[in-house]
Amino acid sequence: MQIREFTDADWDAVWPIVQEVIKAEDTYAVEPDLTPEQAYEFWVAGQHTVVAVDDTGGGGILGTAHMSPVRPARGSHVANASFMVSSAARGKGVGEALVRYALDRARADGYAGMQFNAVIETNTSAVKLYERLGFRIIGTVPGAFDHPVQGRVGLHIMYIEL
Amino acid sequence: MQIREFTDADWDAVWPIVQEVIKAEDTYAVEPDLTPEQAYEFWVAGQHTVVAVDDTGGGGILGTAHMSPVRPARGSHVANASFMVSSAARGKGVGEALVRYALDRARADGYAGMQFNAVIETNTSAVKLYERLGFRIIGTVPGAFDHPVQGRVGLHIMYIEL
Repeated sequence: MQIREFTDADWDAVWPIVQEVIKAEDTYAVEPDLTPEQAYEFWVAGQHTVVAVDDTGGGGILGTAHMSPVRPARGSHVANASFMVSSAARGKGVGEALVRYALDRARADGYAGMQFNAVIETNTSAVKLYERLGFRIIGTVPGAFDHPVQGRVGLHIMYIEL
Repeated sequence: MQIREFTDADWDAVWPIVQEVIKAEDTYAVEPDLTPEQAYEFWVAGQHTVVAVDDTGGGGILGTAHMSPVRPARGSHVANASFMVSSAARGKGVGEALVRYALDRARADGYAGMQFNAVIETNTSAVKLYERLGFRIIGTVPGAFDHPVQGRVGLHIMYIEL
């Protein structure tokens, strides 16, 4: 697997991943019926977007991440990042590779830390991965995510110093 | 003091308040040199914006608040709100009146809670006001705000159930 910069030529392969993830409504608080244009605005515009590519099996895109400052101006020394992996590619370390890449890039870019604003507390595979890579839970907003199956569950704010 | 809905005719009086607050760079992580159009986009567009009006002294605008869901879709049952008070009107309860108004409106609109994403930990008058009105600190992101005088200080996430 190789992680490289997103280019607009990748959008036709990234959009189905974004669409699949937001339609499931179980990991992101995002409108599930975004048009491709709205999804591009959400995932690419103003973001540093990368893709994870299968370099052994034909070059398919397995996952994607985007990064940006969590806040502008006097908050811009803390990075934010989000990750999506194609359902067909889950369980193979793609997410972990993307998180490690994002951390390396944020360190190289001089960020002081990385913050996640809304990690669904019942998404234990993500929470455990982030904790294993050094993030800690700053706090949990109770019931802030209306999970389609589990109902209202908490959203963790997670942080790692870089 | 009366709190009422913002109309576009108020912008000429609200913009100097927004400009003063963001230029100070000590309470908001926002670009300090926004144009009026960018400031309108930040403070009014897509927001429920209100103004606090001096109904004893000529109708001047003392402060302003805006409210919106903190997240879309499955996060939209939690409200977010922000407040600004003209420096000339501080210490007179304008901020408290705006927060109480926002809480009442959020309750009336059926929100389950209100979340503040970034309360500067050294802004003790705001923190104490919010705590007095029932908010609690969910957690603090260390050093996430580069205060112009105090250097890097934490940002509280604060929450109240409604």
